[in-house]
Amino acid sequence: MRMYDIIEKKRDGLILSEDEIRYFISGYTNGTIPDYQVSALLMAIYFQGMNQTELAYLTKAMVDSGDTIDLSAIEGVKVDKHSTGGVGDTTTLILAPLVASLGVPVAKMSGRGLGHTGGTLDKLESIPGFHIEITRDEFIQRVNQNKVAVIGQTGNLTPADKKIYSLRDVTATVNSIPLIASSIMSKKIAAGSDAIVLDVKTGQGAFMKQASEAEELAKSMVAIGNKTNRKTIAVISDMNQPLGYAVGNALEVKEAIETLQGNGPKDLTELCLTLGTYMVVLSGVVQTEKEARKKLEENLQNGKALQTFKLFIESQGGDPQVVDDPDRLPQAKYKIEVPAKKSGTVSKIIADDIGTIAMSLGAGRQTKDDVIDLAVGIVLHKKIGESVKAGETLVTIHSNHEDISDIKPKIYESILISGDNVTSPRLIHNIIS
Amino acid sequence: MRMYDIIEKKRDGLILSEDEIRYFISGYTNGTIPDYQVSALLMAIYFQGMNQTELAYLTKAMVDSGDTIDLSAIEGVKVDKHSTGGVGDTTTLILAPLVASLGVPVAKMSGRGLGHTGGTLDKLESIPGFHIEITRDEFIQRVNQNKVAVIGQTGNLTPADKKIYSLRDVTATVNSIPLIASSIMSKKIAAGSDAIVLDVKTGQGAFMKQASEAEELAKSMVAIGNKTNRKTIAVISDMNQPLGYAVGNALEVKEAIETLQGNGPKDLTELCLTLGTYMVVLSGVVQTEKEARKKLEENLQNGKALQTFKLFIESQGGDPQVVDDPDRLPQAKYKIEVPAKKSGTVSKIIADDIGTIAMSLGAGRQTKDDVIDLAVGIVLHKKIGESVKAGETLVTIHSNHEDISDIKPKIYESILISGDNVTSPRLIHNIIS
Repeated sequence: MRMYDIIEKKRDGLILSEDEIRYFISGYTNGTIPDYQVSALLMAIYFQGMNQTELAYLTKAMVDSGDTIDLSAIEGVKVDKHSTGGVGDTTTLILAPLVASLGVPVAKMSGRGLGHTGGTLDKLESIPGFHIEITRDEFIQRVNQNKVAVIGQTGNLTPADKKIYSLRDVTATVNSIPLIASSIMSKKIAAGSDAIVLDVKTGQGAFMKQASEAEELAKSMVAIGNKTNRKTIAVISDMNQPLGYAVGNALEVKEAIETLQGNGPKDLTELCLTLGTYMVVLSGVVQTEKEARKKLEENLQNGKALQTFKLFIESQGGDPQVVDDPDRLPQAKYKIEVPAKKSGTVSKIIADDIGTIAMSLGAGRQTKDDVIDLAVGIVLHKKIGESVKAGETLVTIHSNHEDISDIKPKIYESILISGDNVTSPRLIHNIIS
Repeated sequence: MRMYDIIEKKRDGLILSEDEIRYFISGYTNGTIPDYQVSALLMAIYFQGMNQTELAYLTKAMVDSGDTIDLSAIEGVKVDKHSTGGVGDTTTLILAPLVASLGVPVAKMSGRGLGHTGGTLDKLESIPGFHIEITRDEFIQRVNQNKVAVIGQTGNLTPADKKIYSLRDVTATVNSIPLIASSIMSKKIAAGSDAIVLDVKTGQGAFMKQASEAEELAKSMVAIGNKTNRKTIAVISDMNQPLGYAVGNALEVKEAIETLQGNGPKDLTELCLTLGTYMVVLSGVVQTEKEARKKLEENLQNGKALQTFKLFIESQGGDPQVVDDPDRLPQAKYKIEVPAKKSGTVSKIIADDIGTIAMSLGAGRQTKDDVIDLAVGIVLHKKIGESVKAGETLVTIHSNHEDISDIKPKIYESILISGDNVTSPRLIHNIIS
């Protein structure tokens, strides 16, 4: 077998066999196939795509390129959730204790990564004392005991994906649906989940700007799941504005607590109930979507979800009192309110720009070595479709620098107020299963 | 400027600027841009193509990546000819002395390379004593004196093209018309020609199997010529069967001599007259195509072309008597006639296979280090459309091994005889100028 022939075949729009895909993945992982041949193949895949069978082979080959996590010692069906990424996305912090409170085992492996804010781990670490340095055995034991635990990424998972992703990043081949789908699914499968609920974001603040692209990605991932015996459901959700009001690490933890108390932002609560419903149903704890939703709503109201969150925090060394007193979370020195310049209805909140502003305050990493400021960020006071009066607070900037003169104009550029009637964008676009 | 953005731009079908093309070519030549980014760009070009302006910028950037040959000390308009390559293509050996005999300066830089037979240099070296080790000054002096001289490739011409070609060769991006066109034209321009006549082959034995592809390539190269002030004309000629009868180095020299004597194969003679006509007209020595053709025909008949060939051979140390006594050329030990198995009309001569058989006899190089056997090859006795009787000789195999039992069946597989009427394929498909 020759890599040249594999490139040529894909270039000409033909279907690669399992053997060819395994040859390419193992050869690239062990260094016998050079970068320049792989980047040519990736660009050919960008143009010619891959069918569902090829995608399943590619995903399995990437899973097999490294270690896999064995979660069989955890009782029950392990359902993982993955979001394709947006601005102010606090769903994991809410969903983990929420579905665990119904008995669904949540064995979460989570990362830090780059972005507008930190990853789930960073956010959790804004809770004083919280740490993720636990052994694999402790992790499994805690999930069995409390139904929820979080651990940092351990083991050499999907090295092929890591190597391919680095190459895609410098060869303009990131934005390819088959490559995105296989990358995400290989990581989820290697991390040991039995079933997967995907939150595929679409809109201005999402990687997939067009709903049609998001649907295509969702269908590809669901197909991979079906072909690899992982029940998979994808929710296509809106990312034309930040989710909830808070964008920042500790600020999002506070918002998660409010949501677990039943007082969260409407869109964030609704998305968590939707994703949670499918997680609960896939886990088999409850049979119907209707029943799952009802129980999840109950546990937000009766304090059980919040109680599970407390238990979870405590079990990983964190201060559970933050739940009752969120001021124990890191606080920024300056809380600066930015007033609306005119009256009207909020017509646009450019999610990407809000995220970039939060990052510039210090909430996220631009490079791996950046240190995150867990306290800072932005809290919106209005969402699209809400009316606002001139002088009323539009956002509060949480900053550790007093001078935000360069930030303010950017806020005004990213939040538009219109004299027209504007309706709030639909939150759930579609469900793919 | 970032290579990433250039890849992305081309991937999205946008037009690259001159600056972007120069950045990529110079960065790749000097090693600051890695192979893996260039191979991704090449694959994007494969899919998205390049317009004529981009092609001219790319060609010029490749010319400027290395040395260029200054032929200004040679009087007159230097017209070069280039063939995209076929089987049994002896045109250069005939055209060089033929057009020189009309006063057109032929300053030929030629190579060896891989293929079914050797390059022009190899063929010429089958003339005892002939050598191409002459200095640049001697070369120029001889062109001014005799109107024709050949030199091996000197200087560091188009290093960018060499590097890109090596990469295309291992990433399935050879077969891209913009990349082929710019590669050929950059080498011709760097070699110092003022005007270029292109022989673009099409058919089974050509790189461009389809006439439409050959036309597209011809148009791209003519456009590059026009945009870089090199008058360029392309002839699309047939390569569904070998050109002439001989395939092999000394065998082709002998056929060239016969053609220069006015006794050459009809197709080879016609192609030389066609290409020669455009070379003469582009050089300005003669004004009209009609007049050029008439003078070329005259010089084949009156011995002037042959005389120029003799002079040319002598001036480069070769034995001019080969012209009158071709048996002085290297002779194979065994000349084995292969008879037709049945009567009928030759309906197909698979050019590629005939070339491969010649190579297996030793006439060409598969790898750079192979040593060519100048004596061996194949001489056809019949071309497509000619009738043949069972037992009549179909081809003569010139071999230095007595046992050709593995060759004979291949000959029968590559030359088909039909009971139907078959017409000879049209030689000249089109002229692009």
